[in-house]
Amino acid sequence: MDERVREHAEVLVDWSARVEAGDDVVVSVAEDAHELGVAVAEALGERGANVTTLYGSSEVSRAYLKGVEAGTEGDVEADDFDADPAVERALFEAADAYLRIGGGRNTTATADVDRSTRQAYAKARKGVREARMDTDWVSTVHPTRSLAQQAGMAYEEYQEFVYDAVLRDWESLAEEMAQMKEILDAGEEVRIVTERDGAPDTDVAMSIADRTAVNSAASVAYDSHNLPSGEVFTAPYDTEGEAFFDVPMTIDATRVRNVHLVFEGGEVVDFSAEAGEDALAEILDTDEGARRLGELGIGMNRGIDRFTDSILFDEKMGDTVHLAVGRAYDACLPDGESGNDSAVHVDMISDVSERSRMEVDSEVVQRNGTFRWEEGFEE
Amino acid sequence: MDERVREHAEVLVDWSARVEAGDDVVVSVAEDAHELGVAVAEALGERGANVTTLYGSSEVSRAYLKGVEAGTEGDVEADDFDADPAVERALFEAADAYLRIGGGRNTTATADVDRSTRQAYAKARKGVREARMDTDWVSTVHPTRSLAQQAGMAYEEYQEFVYDAVLRDWESLAEEMAQMKEILDAGEEVRIVTERDGAPDTDVAMSIADRTAVNSAASVAYDSHNLPSGEVFTAPYDTEGEAFFDVPMTIDATRVRNVHLVFEGGEVVDFSAEAGEDALAEILDTDEGARRLGELGIGMNRGIDRFTDSILFDEKMGDTVHLAVGRAYDACLPDGESGNDSAVHVDMISDVSERSRMEVDSEVVQRNGTFRWEEGFEE
Repeated sequence: MDERVREHAEVLVDWSARVEAGDDVVVSVAEDAHELGVAVAEALGERGANVTTLYGSSEVSRAYLKGVEAGTEGDVEADDFDADPAVERALFEAADAYLRIGGGRNTTATADVDRSTRQAYAKARKGVREARMDTDWVSTVHPTRSLAQQAGMAYEEYQEFVYDAVLRDWESLAEEMAQMKEILDAGEEVRIVTERDGAPDTDVAMSIADRTAVNSAASVAYDSHNLPSGEVFTAPYDTEGEAFFDVPMTIDATRVRNVHLVFEGGEVVDFSAEAGEDALAEILDTDEGARRLGELGIGMNRGIDRFTDSILFDEKMGDTVHLAVGRAYDACLPDGESGNDSAVHVDMISDVSERSRMEVDSEVVQRNGTFRWEEGFEE
Repeated sequence: MDERVREHAEVLVDWSARVEAGDDVVVSVAEDAHELGVAVAEALGERGANVTTLYGSSEVSRAYLKGVEAGTEGDVEADDFDADPAVERALFEAADAYLRIGGGRNTTATADVDRSTRQAYAKARKGVREARMDTDWVSTVHPTRSLAQQAGMAYEEYQEFVYDAVLRDWESLAEEMAQMKEILDAGEEVRIVTERDGAPDTDVAMSIADRTAVNSAASVAYDSHNLPSGEVFTAPYDTEGEAFFDVPMTIDATRVRNVHLVFEGGEVVDFSAEAGEDALAEILDTDEGARRLGELGIGMNRGIDRFTDSILFDEKMGDTVHLAVGRAYDACLPDGESGNDSAVHVDMISDVSERSRMEVDSEVVQRNGTFRWEEGFEE
């Protein structure tokens, strides 16, 4: 076995999920993620944990949902599913940790399932999802040919990309990110400005007063549930201005490019996209919260050196910031307060490596990708 | 998808497990059983059942157990594992049905795990196993290259073999087998005689008074949990005589051939094997019950036309009978009575297609493979 697979498993089990002897760990293994599944099982055995392995196959999910469509007259609705089936609820309620290893054979495996069917399925499983979120859950991917293809990369090249992102010195990255968190926690307003052809294309300001930033260092100990991670994020509100997102993304199998959003009084009041505008419109029309921001995130993982059309990696890339419309994370909110609520959470990313600045309470914190504590920062 | 895969899924879901709308079904998919897993998920969706999919990978199991060995000083014992981990217990306790789809990539994938480790693991999960057995469980296999290899067959040839065994008219086979069950239920003693070179090599008699035979028609509705099935079995006792088993088998990765057992007072008092005698000895020495019979089975599935070194198929083959040392099935016993108890249950098979007879209460029921209700039966 490739030594990097073992190291990935160790980072996942020890740094990310903090598994201890006696923990009940549920591992979900995607179709082509077998090798990492094997390495994770061995690591869990060594640490004296218990393991239950799920098969996280998109093709099995598709077949099930197509079966439900075939067995239902008309559109599938949430009450065509049993709400929160007992097996999965019991499974996650009993679990201490949940490790999701992505890496299927086809990133568009569920493309022919009606969107409404998928939404109905998700809606009927809210309790299951909450039970899963209550565990020490971590989501990662094993590098597969299908993900390499989505990234437009050769397989071996993609493997190197993934391990560069995952096998980092997380302890020292966490220390660096703590500086960003400190600034955001103390700050009241963030302003982001980017320029293109001499004119600002993004100039957006948002309030972060009373919000707590998450130092997302790829570990449940930091309220961080992705491996790789490497971002600092918070839950902004009262957004005003315009924002332009130049990093392409995929929403529901639709390619979306060059999104432009206009905010007034905290809400998106106008929008456009050079491609995929319909998919964007559908997201923004989901519910009331879908037009407000749920997240401001600052990518700080410099092991990620390119966009690969995977939000797990793209949003953590160094020299990027992202805003998400939709649901906010509880960890960012004052105790007992609820933030922006929505059925969706869609991240949109800007490259800030050039002609950009981010200010917190009018002080420049990052300019052209360089943070103020880094060498080469221009005041 | 091969139409036979869909048909296999339908037999499994409808005939075998009797799944109904609203049932919580756990499906375990082995490494190379993806295709049947997909077909089963679709069938379950159509019927309005809920599905949770486990990854039944022998390589993941091996890795976990090797990890436990690496993390344990000295031999692994049952108390090195947590007894009945909460996740798996909860999972099976909440399940209505459990469909196990075998078909890995290597039938000897766990060969380098210590036997004692595997036994300790099984011992620590007795409660999980019992919860699993309390569901409507069915075990089947998807034809894989690894199973074809174990059978010494080409892949496509093996596929045909499996579907011939599985895609039967189960209803009419169940009716035929009911005749055998009736005879055994009414009978008090079974005697089996086979001859080789003119002299009897098997001449064994056993009591079946007060025992109930199972018409194992590959459906939970018949207390039958294998697909394919096609045998009638009961739980004999007070065995006397000698029995010779000419069908080769594999015990714990050891090939065992031509087993000869001598019974006195219900117990094996002498034994030999032309190959694998040590593995046989280890089985018989497991515990007290391992020297007594737990099962007499009569193979009646004529879709199975050859031995493939897989007990799921071999023991159901038409023109064979088998005896198992070890554990008896509760379904064969009078209410509240316990039959032979043991940690093992090892089936041994005799070809009875020639020079053989089976008598129930001194009446010949089967001669040279032909049952007395069949054409060509010689009184």
